[in-house]
Amino acid sequence: MPASALDSAVFRDIFATPAMRRVFSDENRVQRYLDIEAALARVEARLGIIPAEAAAEIERHCRADAFDMERLKTQTELIGYPVLPVVQQLVKLCKDGLGEWCHWGATTQDITDTATVLQIREALALVAADLDAIADSLAALAAKYRDTPMAGRSNLQQAVPVTFGYKMAVLLAGIDRHRARLKQMLPRVLVGEFGGAAGNLSSLGERGLDVQAALMEELGLGQPEIAWHTMRDRIAEAGCFLGLVTGTLGKIATDVKLMMQTEVEEVYEPFAEGRGSSSTMPQKRNPISSNYIIACTAMVRQNVAALLDAMLEDHERATGPWEIEWIAVPEIFLLSAGALAQARFLVAGLQVDPARMRRNLDITGGLIVSEAVMMGLGPYLGRQRAHDLVYDICRKAIGTGRRFLDLLAEDPEIAPHLDRAALAKLVDPANYLGLAGVMVDRVLELRKKARH
Amino acid sequence: MPASALDSAVFRDIFATPAMRRVFSDENRVQRYLDIEAALARVEARLGIIPAEAAAEIERHCRADAFDMERLKTQTELIGYPVLPVVQQLVKLCKDGLGEWCHWGATTQDITDTATVLQIREALALVAADLDAIADSLAALAAKYRDTPMAGRSNLQQAVPVTFGYKMAVLLAGIDRHRARLKQMLPRVLVGEFGGAAGNLSSLGERGLDVQAALMEELGLGQPEIAWHTMRDRIAEAGCFLGLVTGTLGKIATDVKLMMQTEVEEVYEPFAEGRGSSSTMPQKRNPISSNYIIACTAMVRQNVAALLDAMLEDHERATGPWEIEWIAVPEIFLLSAGALAQARFLVAGLQVDPARMRRNLDITGGLIVSEAVMMGLGPYLGRQRAHDLVYDICRKAIGTGRRFLDLLAEDPEIAPHLDRAALAKLVDPANYLGLAGVMVDRVLELRKKARH
Amino acid sequence: MPASALDSAVFRDIFATPAMRRVFSDENRVQRYLDIEAALARVEARLGIIPAEAAAEIERHCRADAFDMERLKTQTELIGYPVLPVVQQLVKLCKDGLGEWCHWGATTQDITDTATVLQIREALALVAADLDAIADSLAALAAKYRDTPMAGRSNLQQAVPVTFGYKMAVLLAGIDRHRARLKQMLPRVLVGEFGGAAGNLSSLGERGLDVQAALMEELGLGQPEIAWHTMRDRIAEAGCFLGLVTGTLGKIATDVKLMMQTEVEEVYEPFAEGRGSSSTMPQKRNPISSNYIIACTAMVRQNVAALLDAMLEDHERATGPWEIEWIAVPEIFLLSAGALAQARFLVAGLQVDPARMRRNLDITGGLIVSEAVMMGLGPYLGRQRAHDLVYDICRKAIGTGRRFLDLLAEDPEIAPHLDRAALAKLVDPANYLGLAGVMVDRVLELRKKARH
Amino acid sequence: MPASALDSAVFRDIFATPAMRRVFSDENRVQRYLDIEAALARVEARLGIIPAEAAAEIERHCRADAFDMERLKTQTELIGYPVLPVVQQLVKLCKDGLGEWCHWGATTQDITDTATVLQIREALALVAADLDAIADSLAALAAKYRDTPMAGRSNLQQAVPVTFGYKMAVLLAGIDRHRARLKQMLPRVLVGEFGGAAGNLSSLGERGLDVQAALMEELGLGQPEIAWHTMRDRIAEAGCFLGLVTGTLGKIATDVKLMMQTEVEEVYEPFAEGRGSSSTMPQKRNPISSNYIIACTAMVRQNVAALLDAMLEDHERATGPWEIEWIAVPEIFLLSAGALAQARFLVAGLQVDPARMRRNLDITGGLIVSEAVMMGLGPYLGRQRAHDLVYDICRKAIGTGRRFLDLLAEDPEIAPHLDRAALAKLVDPANYLGLAGVMVDRVLELRKKARH
Repeated sequence: MPASALDSAVFRDIFATPAMRRVFSDENRVQRYLDIEAALARVEARLGIIPAEAAAEIERHCRADAFDMERLKTQTELIGYPVLPVVQQLVKLCKDGLGEWCHWGATTQDITDTATVLQIREALALVAADLDAIADSLAALAAKYRDTPMAGRSNLQQAVPVTFGYKMAVLLAGIDRHRARLKQMLPRVLVGEFGGAAGNLSSLGERGLDVQAALMEELGLGQPEIAWHTMRDRIAEAGCFLGLVTGTLGKIATDVKLMMQTEVEEVYEPFAEGRGSSSTMPQKRNPISSNYIIACTAMVRQNVAALLDAMLEDHERATGPWEIEWIAVPEIFLLSAGALAQARFLVAGLQVDPARMRRNLDITGGLIVSEAVMMGLGPYLGRQRAHDLVYDICRKAIGTGRRFLDLLAEDPEIAPHLDRAALAKLVDPANYLGLAGVMVDRVLELRKKARH
Repeated sequence: MPASALDSAVFRDIFATPAMRRVFSDENRVQRYLDIEAALARVEARLGIIPAEAAAEIERHCRADAFDMERLKTQTELIGYPVLPVVQQLVKLCKDGLGEWCHWGATTQDITDTATVLQIREALALVAADLDAIADSLAALAAKYRDTPMAGRSNLQQAVPVTFGYKMAVLLAGIDRHRARLKQMLPRVLVGEFGGAAGNLSSLGERGLDVQAALMEELGLGQPEIAWHTMRDRIAEAGCFLGLVTGTLGKIATDVKLMMQTEVEEVYEPFAEGRGSSSTMPQKRNPISSNYIIACTAMVRQNVAALLDAMLEDHERATGPWEIEWIAVPEIFLLSAGALAQARFLVAGLQVDPARMRRNLDITGGLIVSEAVMMGLGPYLGRQRAHDLVYDICRKAIGTGRRFLDLLAEDPEIAPHLDRAALAKLVDPANYLGLAGVMVDRVLELRKKARH
Repeated sequence: MPASALDSAVFRDIFATPAMRRVFSDENRVQRYLDIEAALARVEARLGIIPAEAAAEIERHCRADAFDMERLKTQTELIGYPVLPVVQQLVKLCKDGLGEWCHWGATTQDITDTATVLQIREALALVAADLDAIADSLAALAAKYRDTPMAGRSNLQQAVPVTFGYKMAVLLAGIDRHRARLKQMLPRVLVGEFGGAAGNLSSLGERGLDVQAALMEELGLGQPEIAWHTMRDRIAEAGCFLGLVTGTLGKIATDVKLMMQTEVEEVYEPFAEGRGSSSTMPQKRNPISSNYIIACTAMVRQNVAALLDAMLEDHERATGPWEIEWIAVPEIFLLSAGALAQARFLVAGLQVDPARMRRNLDITGGLIVSEAVMMGLGPYLGRQRAHDLVYDICRKAIGTGRRFLDLLAEDPEIAPHLDRAALAKLVDPANYLGLAGVMVDRVLELRKKARH
Repeated sequence: MPASALDSAVFRDIFATPAMRRVFSDENRVQRYLDIEAALARVEARLGIIPAEAAAEIERHCRADAFDMERLKTQTELIGYPVLPVVQQLVKLCKDGLGEWCHWGATTQDITDTATVLQIREALALVAADLDAIADSLAALAAKYRDTPMAGRSNLQQAVPVTFGYKMAVLLAGIDRHRARLKQMLPRVLVGEFGGAAGNLSSLGERGLDVQAALMEELGLGQPEIAWHTMRDRIAEAGCFLGLVTGTLGKIATDVKLMMQTEVEEVYEPFAEGRGSSSTMPQKRNPISSNYIIACTAMVRQNVAALLDAMLEDHERATGPWEIEWIAVPEIFLLSAGALAQARFLVAGLQVDPARMRRNLDITGGLIVSEAVMMGLGPYLGRQRAHDLVYDICRKAIGTGRRFLDLLAEDPEIAPHLDRAALAKLVDPANYLGLAGVMVDRVLELRKKARH
């Protein structure tokens, strides 16, 4: 009987994904605890700190499916932390008291923090795969529609023409920046924890740092320069990264839902029979993925604030702030996975209507390129005079509803310099696309370089 | 395989409660949809809009356990909203096509919003019960320790003496204010929704408002003055209320964890064998409930911001902001329930150590009542002179480590007026409790009045 | 050289207002401190606690313009709180050491909290006036355009017709709910603080509560049931209220900017020569107020979270959380004032284009009232058959681009029952407005009742 | 009459700094606009796009102090954006109509975005300097107190001993990670904007990218791969960075205020006559900087959420989200500067009391090293037996209040193996410091390497 939207029997694959839920499932978390306990035993045996026989026995039992989750729950409620209850069960599972050698020199938070980092490693790999796929789709759209004219919009007003490929390339550049961020962040975030009760490894004597180094190598994680039990910038940084990523996805979703409006209809979310439809209003084609992305993103950014809040930890092991992470870390990754999956689906199957884009460009009857006309008349009338004249004619077109081209063509000041055909060329938005195509090429080129 | 902390097999009863999870479970939500569909059919039959036979058949099938949740999930993913899939199943369950009469004149969001309000009604009843219980415990503590002296602390510095009962009465007054807020808020929040596609009930002709009124009476909800599909202040207000409630709980938790410090030890969370203990550090007695309350509260306040964000809905039915509520409403209630349950347990069983409170009061050797000494000497030396003299002696006490009383007693300016016994009385914190007790009585008295 | 947007020489009247800035100005805050000190002296003289002569002298000097703000700044930085530095200056201003009697029995936070409440009283009066004005404008729009048809939109798709008056009435109902909230909230928020160092009035002996009661009466504030130095629900509640209010304003702004799109153009922000214009793109008419409202609202909701955070105060006087309020309280009121002023201007002068609304209604060629056609054919064909047939014809209209009415008229199944004229009436959106007008009346009627 | 805390005549140097306020002052912002206009004119003249004479005249007038700020304010309110009003004034200042050549090919947001980046460059340089200074102070404290024993605290309970130097080294490592982040972030954030109305440089024909490249080189900024008018990850990333930085500062402040408690008194904020003092409670020594840091940090993290919110921008130039940045960017930098300045002052002058640290270590009578005793007895009694025996003796010590050492010494099971002197050595916390010192060295060593 799940109650949160992220685990709901109905909504769980809308706001999250099976793969990300698996990463943050109880089973996986407990298994990561056990992976670490096994690695620790292995390493300590190798270093001669615990008997090799004990390590073997411990490792043999480090399988989550043998653990009693119900008992783990009640013991966690009593003690306040889940690691000791896991260790107690592990000890019991081992024969001949060999389990007593498990968890040697570690503290609860060593295991939970390192497990969290292992989960984050899995989770970020999923994020990276989604970012790659989204970037590939955007790159394909940018290339395909490199020269497809559409209205560029500023303040929700048609401003000047752009191309749909250009619009996609802008998004693509943003996604590619996230991939660069991820690469820089990983070595800082994927660092384990092993310090004992207050981080100074007092329980292991001189061998503490050797164990720490070997353990981290075993787990494929970075060795910490010093304990970070209460210095949570690594975790919060991962959260910030997801805030940035979903912010970009939210921008994509915002544009798509606006372009899907009845009055615009330039793109559609991917079609599937019945998708986004209404039983009584057949004319509707609702944005679905876009809405979900926007909702996930709104939740993610507040979770970022929560993770920053969790940084104010007291002393060597904190009272409350750390527990914020227990809630916020799974949530922010689940929500981000939901947004990424919806966005991936969205851009992979986006339906584009170049004809409608062209028709919308013509709504203003050429006013959208008044800038171009000013530029075109400048050489003949002088820049300032060209500006003033064109501005007046525009106002007249808006006021009277007459066509811009007609008004230009019949103007006595313009007639001597440009005939109707020349003017028609000037007011054609397709002739005023600037460097849209070149910029698409630039972004696509940069991607290729980054890959090599 | 739940993944969020709120549904986790391990953490779900730490950060939430079974009762609140039941309210926001998929089963209960679907059942509320069906309750509304049944009530609507009943009402429309009574008003002669649909056949009585259809209403009876529809009502007979409005039981969530007969619904295929897996199919509901996949259809919701396709359509984007869960109500139409429920209606489709309901139609199928009914014989002779009578199901066609269900959902008559309603739109998807009528059902979901009204169901949400029904859930909120259940949820707020749980909140109210917890607030009552917490208030009762605090009232008992306030009465019992009405005259138990302890250090009042300002800026984490001992300032002047108070009583533990006074401290509890301050908290109690806050809880009681929340109960007053809840009472005022309920009629505004417990209002249903029934307006059709754009809220203007066009599908029901002239009878729309009659159906609406009868439906709301049937459900025990207020009738809306007009549709609120995209005016979400009712929902956000409920969220704000929870933000305020958990804010107070967070304050309680903050004080408890500070009083539990090794260096303070004035109160303890309720004792249970092994609770909050460490296997290798037997001297520790960890705050547990306090930590959880602080974590839940931190998440709740971010969810409040999310719910305020969800108010920016577009037109008659929104694109994204509404879906924020789907995530945030269950979450904020679950987290609040977690915080309330922990707080209820905490104050019900709080262990208080009056002897240690008294010992801590004496840490400053009477400096904590330097204000009292100034006041006591005022009549003899003049207020300003008394202040300056006492201030100097205090500084001397701090600098030399000698006892405040000794320094006062040997001061030649003071000696003529007050002897050592009189001074000893002045520097006894128990003699400088102000109106702490009277204030406790005031708060307890107010409660009695509020109840009648 | 101001640096924040709220005080910026350029932006200050965009994101805030002169009236609200005056309330939260240094001068006004210091004056409120002095008003309280004067009232306290007056009351204590009346009760015989301090000499009448002292009270008169103190009151005479309680004028902010006589205070050295530069010195106040440096002393505040040293001591950490601004009240003691003010008191020191006040003492100095008074002759014959009479100033020594000022601040008698008070603590720093008594003065600052009470001053904050006095500021909040002034600020909420400004908010109330803006809400009234906005409600009046919305009521006028609702009445004027009660029967003006336009597209109701769901998911940014045209759904069914509504009227513009109906749309305004929905907003109006939301604003009126805020006014009801404000009324309920005021007695809880407008409560002063007077308790001494730890709130228990130890410095004033038995007379403490008499002084407290008289002081609050003098200031026109409620008497606290007990100290609330570290129980900040009153302040946070005011913040939540502003979060709710601006949430509604943000919804209004969202709708306006969407209706101003080049492709929609149903309403415009108030016209002023050059307002929202572009020098090179004369066809643009930018939303300005709408943008500002959305930005202010986004900041307000984060400040709400900050004020909820500030509730976690430690012991009797807190370390840090309180100072959050010093920043957030002025900011949240300033931003809300900015949003309110922009919204007030916006709705007072909103330009409405009923003709364009009508044209947009016709974009779908009648598909927007497919629901009405289904209903109209139901009696002849049966409900289900009517649905299926109309749905198919709609799809055909969308697929082929042919007119809905033509397809209906030539359908052999429909022809026997309804002729083209009857069908034309059915597909006219103006004939399918439901209870939009009645609902407008309901909301306007409720307002009248609430006023009496 | 400033109203926000950040510009307040009283609080402005508490929550912000003069240097950071200068960066975000109106004067500096306008000057940055003009710097860009001048650079643009220079570059375009060099490329032969505008006359050299015009560029010279424009550059001559690009001095903010010649601009009418009052007029700038009213024009900004009218138009909605501040750049066009600046350009209009600049045009007027230039003789012979040469000003007409200014702003050639640029759009409003090109100038504002690039100016924001220039301000961020200045601001981040201030942040970097503060981080360096804080790191240096922490490094000095870590070195000086490398071996000074104190209680390590977990859950606000004394757990095991650490050293004060170790505690400082943990903080230092966090600050050093921020410096590494900053370095990676700068090339991504310090990128200008120049794209014209929709970013595709249509107004400049083929020369657009040449102008863009030359302009960015002139300004010392990176050239954008494509327009980022509505892709705000660069700005939001800078905000996230400040969220992380202040999170660490908040952790430092939390520890300091806890260590300053009357019952702990291990460190003090820097001393200055009267700093943090109370006129009537001379025993108090209030944390001041710590409180301010905590308040600033709480506001910063909500501003991070606001900046992430601002990422959801529509189309090519947005409606509202961008304006969030106008408020939040100055605010987040001002608040961060406030927190950094307070933290810098705090750690530079932190007063440390090693004697009191030692006394606090002894509060538990040696129980804090029960782990050490278990370890010490393990070789004689076996690990499990040692654990159980010591655990029992600990409980007895807590229950009876007798000294741990006495109970150990008189235990018949222990006596054969360790005499009182050996046991005394075991229960001396100074003998159980683990690798605290080595870890200090590690962190200091890493710093040296990073510098080279």
